[in-house]
This record gives sequence, structure tokens and C-alpha cells, in this order.
Amino acid sequence: MPHLPALRTLLPHTTIWDAAELATRDPGFDARNFGASALVRPRDTAEVAALVKFCAEHGISLVPQGGRTGLTGAAATVAGQVICDLGAMNRVEEIDPFARTAIVQAGATLGALQEAAGQHGLDPGIDLAARGSATVGGMVSTNAGGILAFRNGTMRHRVLGLEAVLPDGSVFSDLTCVLKTSAGYDLKHLFIGAEGTLGIVTRVVVRLDPLAGASAAALVGVPDAASAQRIVRHFLGSTAARLSAAEILWRRFADAMQRALNYTPGQLPLDAPCLLVLGLGADSVEAAQSLLEEGLADIWEEAGIIDGLVAASQAQAELIWRLREETEQIERMHHLPPSFDVSVPGGALDEYVTRIEAGLKAIDASYAPYVFGHLADGNLHISINTDGPVSHERHEAIEDVLYAGLTQAGGSFSAEHGVGLEKREAYERHADPVKQALARAVKAMIDPGNMMNPGKVVAL
Amino acid sequence: MPHLPALRTLLPHTTIWDAAELATRDPGFDARNFGASALVRPRDTAEVAALVKFCAEHGISLVPQGGRTGLTGAAATVAGQVICDLGAMNRVEEIDPFARTAIVQAGATLGALQEAAGQHGLDPGIDLAARGSATVGGMVSTNAGGILAFRNGTMRHRVLGLEAVLPDGSVFSDLTCVLKTSAGYDLKHLFIGAEGTLGIVTRVVVRLDPLAGASAAALVGVPDAASAQRIVRHFLGSTAARLSAAEILWRRFADAMQRALNYTPGQLPLDAPCLLVLGLGADSVEAAQSLLEEGLADIWEEAGIIDGLVAASQAQAELIWRLREETEQIERMHHLPPSFDVSVPGGALDEYVTRIEAGLKAIDASYAPYVFGHLADGNLHISINTDGPVSHERHEAIEDVLYAGLTQAGGSFSAEHGVGLEKREAYERHADPVKQALARAVKAMIDPGNMMNPGKVVAL
Repeated sequence: MPHLPALRTLLPHTTIWDAAELATRDPGFDARNFGASALVRPRDTAEVAALVKFCAEHGISLVPQGGRTGLTGAAATVAGQVICDLGAMNRVEEIDPFARTAIVQAGATLGALQEAAGQHGLDPGIDLAARGSATVGGMVSTNAGGILAFRNGTMRHRVLGLEAVLPDGSVFSDLTCVLKTSAGYDLKHLFIGAEGTLGIVTRVVVRLDPLAGASAAALVGVPDAASAQRIVRHFLGSTAARLSAAEILWRRFADAMQRALNYTPGQLPLDAPCLLVLGLGADSVEAAQSLLEEGLADIWEEAGIIDGLVAASQAQAELIWRLREETEQIERMHHLPPSFDVSVPGGALDEYVTRIEAGLKAIDASYAPYVFGHLADGNLHISINTDGPVSHERHEAIEDVLYAGLTQAGGSFSAEHGVGLEKREAYERHADPVKQALARAVKAMIDPGNMMNPGKVVAL
Repeated sequence: MPHLPALRTLLPHTTIWDAAELATRDPGFDARNFGASALVRPRDTAEVAALVKFCAEHGISLVPQGGRTGLTGAAATVAGQVICDLGAMNRVEEIDPFARTAIVQAGATLGALQEAAGQHGLDPGIDLAARGSATVGGMVSTNAGGILAFRNGTMRHRVLGLEAVLPDGSVFSDLTCVLKTSAGYDLKHLFIGAEGTLGIVTRVVVRLDPLAGASAAALVGVPDAASAQRIVRHFLGSTAARLSAAEILWRRFADAMQRALNYTPGQLPLDAPCLLVLGLGADSVEAAQSLLEEGLADIWEEAGIIDGLVAASQAQAELIWRLREETEQIERMHHLPPSFDVSVPGGALDEYVTRIEAGLKAIDASYAPYVFGHLADGNLHISINTDGPVSHERHEAIEDVLYAGLTQAGGSFSAEHGVGLEKREAYERHADPVKQALARAVKAMIDPGNMMNPGKVVAL
């Protein structure tokens, strides 16, 4: 890239890698992440702004990257592009234990924020399996969800304020630290979930919640999702219990996970059509276990529970949680098969799963999806049992089965992974046309040169 | 207005009032609300769209109105304008008890939504004193907050989806019913808190939460806000208690309210410098009362509590709540004095109150503000003890004292009432300039003819 010497002169103390260097590094979850001609790792907002101005002047497109754990290709790059890597802006700058807020640099990992907040008995209220590498900036840019979203909202609901560098190099500064503000358009929401296409998020104010003193887990066998929902509703209705997880695993997924993890058959009770993993916080482990036991006993008959196990130890709880969380086992088993991430409106989960099972069989009689996810917010993850990726046409046929009518019913074809490159076509086919037109107008207004992560989310 | 006959032909079955009719009607909280030349009350989204198209074609500006309970003049109108009154679109269309969502027309009151949700043991999770007349559409448009926001977020956090008619008459339709969606820019947030300047909100999907089985209230005397915050933090940290209100009343306000409400001195213990009103939900009244008593006993010494009373009956709880909620007593007593609504970051409440007391005294030695509000989110309401409104210059001097440094410290000069007309100048003086420029660009893009509630929030 001919601009590298000038860039090195502009930012003499900043880490800059060229394409040759990038080729020797780990690109993260997506092999395309390091296709760019250079990577720049600014150390503060001023350096990000200088980089953005430089790129704007030279017509270079910029792609921001955090932990490179994204699943939709939103951080993929090609030759001629420059990566703005936020990895050096990784500090938790400030925690206010009374206001229950943290000011965090975009490159800090979720794990680092959880640890810093935990020292004050607080927690960011959002959790996901990639916590060790996913960054706060990346989670803001994809509006990450995870296990706790049904209670605490998605990343969008945890952000009180943010700072972002706009495509012209100016700094949008809204480091609001309070929950309540009605002081004009709340424009920070444009940058949340924009996957870096409208600017580069540099700092974030995150809302924190008090940590539960202790927690316990249960594994419950139920006939269907409706039964699991009755159980969840029962726990949510009790003010004494603080439900912290309600994950559902359909039988085929649970069986495959049990084999992949080499669990002894019978080690966990996994014989029901659906398994519900419950997490519950309380002031002590004993209290959490009792609340789970009592709650399940109260709703046992009404929900038609088949069997249930409240973990008696931390080790047993981990055994249950690995069954839900180590989903890369499925990816590995099927060599990166087509995977999907939908939100299905509450009342329709069983009907949806029955419908897609039939629809997928109609495409290919061997198709039998793995279905699991976040029950309490209707967010299902679906992997197909193919051997590796499928053709573009086949992928589209699968999407048609999975996404048909979903937007109209109030659901979403992309629940928590974003649009990136993978869901661009689905976005164009399934998102409301007026919304799409408005999104293009917003993109054209804020980034008229189309320099910020071009080709992702919206096409100009 | 010369267009009235054409409008009546266009919408033959729709209620339309002319200026003469408007002059005979109650304009609500702001005398300026009915200054327009006509009011139209559409019965559905299609009629709103037809009205908007008509006004766009004829260069008429439109002002949407809900319950007309706004406090910043956002619904004020002048001759030549047309009011789009959402009062006929007042139905709670659908409640899904498992998904815990409601689809509501914009003109439904908060009270109507609370009642409909309550029939399923659910609640919209937001509450404010004007619940009987404030509408869901108005609350979305001002991003209303209220008593429960510290726990459940503001209106913005309760909205899952919305439908709005844009200034060109097209319908932005995003009736998402799920919490998790990362399917492109989340543009509904442009309309939340926009006070009708970007379009007219017609339908809203609101998230619901299970109602607590019962609740109890306490009145606690403390030396300062820091002490009250320690108490709140203690209750928030316990998973067994579900804190549902934490309101603070500085002594001068509590004294004035006690007199205005004709309470017998000593009827409630009001001798401390600050009073904290706590609400707590539990599975029974007895459980809620015990949790309040035990929690206060646990933190009594550490927080330096002066005195405390857990309401023994519903009547006593109401006595406590009237002290906080009937704030119109102060308005009446001082003939609509200057009133303000700020968010102060957590750690700085006592310092802020001390600073503004001194700053106001420096303007006029007789100034002694009434201060009260939502402790747990730092949202303070402040009324000055003048006799009626003050001059423009004096108002600005008071604002300078109250707002100085607030945005920079992460607070807000408008916490939950919006900008409207009243805070336009404050917005221009205190909001971030990059944010203001972006807001103007958004307004110019979506409403190039400046026909939607012109002159409110942003000036073109």
C-alpha cells in the first residue's frame, strides 16, 4: 500500500502492520478479517480521528475491528482497505460504584469489564460465551445479546453514552453517564448495531447492576417449548427469585452435544424432547437451590415437567452449562455448516420449529436441524447437519424456510449476530422497504464517501 | 383555514375541529396547545398517512398531540398549523402473555395499558403521575421516564417496535415484538424522543414485565443523598427484594408539601434533612414489609439513618406517596414558577444541590429551591420559590446555575420532560455541537419541508 510511509509519519508511535505482517497473524473467527493492506492500532481517540482523516483524504476505506469474534463477516477486509484495530484502547477507565456506571474504551474485552466491575460487586448485565475476546466496542457495534438479555436487555439497553469518530474525523461525544436523558434526538443509537458503517466507536459508558451473591443451575426435561415457557413465566412472576438464564436445547442438539463432550449416557437426564437450562441468582447458593427446587415443584404438574435436576455442586452446574455453551462442537462436527440466528415471537416457538423441520426436509430429506437458544427472548440458534457449507442457492432456500413471515410476525432474521456480509441478501429480502430506504439515506448522509466498512449492512 | 373543506372531503368520517371549536375546548397542561387553525383526529394509520400527505401537498405544518400533559411546550401550536390528535387511536390491540408484549395504538393512555396488561399479571414497567391522561405515543415521543426507570429503563428501553408516518406520508413499519434484533440500523430510536419532529408515531410494541404480587412503602429520614444512596445500593444488592421506587425529597420540599396537604405535624416523621421514599415489591404485603424492615435495620448504622417508618397500612403508604406525587401543589403555591428537570451523575448529588443553592442565592438572596426526584437514577426536579414565572434573562441565569458543567460531567439538562420549546435555548447552549449538527442533518433529511412540529427540539 503506497500510503504506509505517510501513515507511519503521521502516527510514529502507533503499531502498524502491512499485508505481509497480517498474513502471519491469527485473523480470528473469520479468515477474511486480515485481507486488508494494513492494520493500524491507535492508542486513543485522537489517533483514531487522525487515522480517519488521513483515510478520508486519500479515499481509503476503513474497517474497525475488536475481538474478531463476529459471525457474519462484518470485520472482513480486502486489499486496499485499512483495519482500525481497537486493541490498544482496552482500558476500563472509570467505575462509579454509586452511579453503577463504567466508562470503557472500545477495545476492552467483556471479560475485562466483568472483572473490573466485579471488584465493586457489580456486573455489566450482559454475558456471552466469547467473553474473553469479544470487545465492548464490537458488542456495541453488533448490539450483542447473550444469555442475560431477556432480563437486562441487549447491549443497546446497557449503553448510557458513547463516543465515536465520524467519517469526516469529527468526534461525536455523548459520554452521558445517566439513564434518564430526553435532550434531543438520541443519536448514539445510530452507532449501536451499525457494525462500524457510520463511524468508529471509541469509548462507551456502560450501565452496571449489582451482582447476585450466588447462583444455582437446573436442567429440566419438558415436552415442548410451551411447557418451558410456563416454567419461565412462573419464575419471572416470583419476586423472590432472580432468574438469570433460561436456555432451551431441543433433543437432537442435546444428544449431539452429549456425544461430542463424551458424557456418560445417564450422567445427565436428557431423555425429554426439550431440555431447559435454568440459572437463578440469590443471596446464597443454598437459597438459589431451594428456590429452584420449590419453583419447579410448584409448576411441575401444570407445566408437564418430565424430569428435573437442580445441580448439587458447582461441578454439576458446569456439566450442564458446557452442554449449552460449547456450541463450536457442532460447528466442528459438521465442518462449519450453515448456521442461523433468529428471534421468534413468544407464543410461536413450537409451531416455528415444527414448520422449519418440515420445510428443511422438503429441501433435502436428510436435513435435521440442531435447535437451541435463549428461550425467554425467543432467540433460537439453528445449525443444519450438512457436511460443511452449502451452495449459494441452497443457502437461500434454507433462509427462505427459516425467515419466511418472520419479520411480518414481529420476529427477526438476525437476532444478535448482526448483518455483516452474510445476511446482506436476507436483509434486502426481508427487512421493511421503508426502513431500508431510510437506512441508505442515513448512511449516505453520514458517510457520503462510503469509506466506513463499505458493503456491510447497507449497500449504497 | 381555507383548506378545511378539502380536508373534510378527504376524511369525511373523521372528527375535525376548526379554530372556533378549539377555543371552546380544554387545551391540557399548556394553554398554547390549541393555538392551531384545526384539529384532526384520525381513526387509524391510513388516515394519519392521508392527513400527512394532504398537509405536505399544501405546505401546512402538523403537530401531533397525545394526552397534552407535556411540560416543555412540545405540543404548542400557532395559527396556520394543524393538530394531529391521536385520541381516537386509543386501543390496546393485542397482549401476548408468554412473549410479554403489548401492541398499542399511540393514543392509548398509560393507565389503559397498565389495566389491560394487569389482567394478565403483567405491567408495562413504567409509571408516572400523569398515567390517566399521558398517552403511549406521547411517552414514546418524549422518552418518558418516571419512578421505575432506574430498574426498567425509560420508555426507549420499553419499546420493542414502532410504526410511524413519515413527513412524506410513507409508513415506517417496524412492529418488532422481540427483544433481540440486530438486523440493520435500529431506526425506530430516531422517533423515540423526537417529540413528533420526524414523523407521527401511530403504533408501539411495548415490553411487559410480571407484576409483583404485592408491595410496601417506607419513609426514611437521612442526613443527605449519599446516605440515601447507600440504602438504595443495599436493597439493590439483595436478590430477595425487588426495589420498585427510591424517591428523594429534600426537607424544604417535604415541609411545603406537608403544609399544602394539611398533614398534622408529626403525622409522618419529616424532621431529617432528606427524606427517602422506598417502594418494594414482594410476593405478599407482609413479605414486602418484612424485607423493608430487615433491610433498613441491616443498613441503619452504616447509612446513618435518622428515622424510618415502614407503612403499616395501604392508607399510610398513600399518605407517604401523596407527599411525593402531588407536586402540582408547589406549582399552584408559587403560580407556575420556573421548574427544571436534570439528571446528575451518581456520586455528585449532594455537591450539586449545595452548589445550586449557593448559585441561586447569588442571583437573588430570597431564592430557595424545592428539590425532589428519582434518587436511583439521579433525576432531580427543581422548582424555584418565585411568585410566578420570571423574565427571560433571569430564567437564563437560573439555567446557567443549574446546567453549568452538567453535560460535561455526563448528566443531562433535560432528564425526562424533553426539549420542546422551553429547553430549545438550553439545548443550543449545552448540547454537544457535533451532536447538534448531526441532529439538524437528520431533521433536514427526513423532514426537508420542516412540516413536522417545526421549531421544536432542533431548529433548521
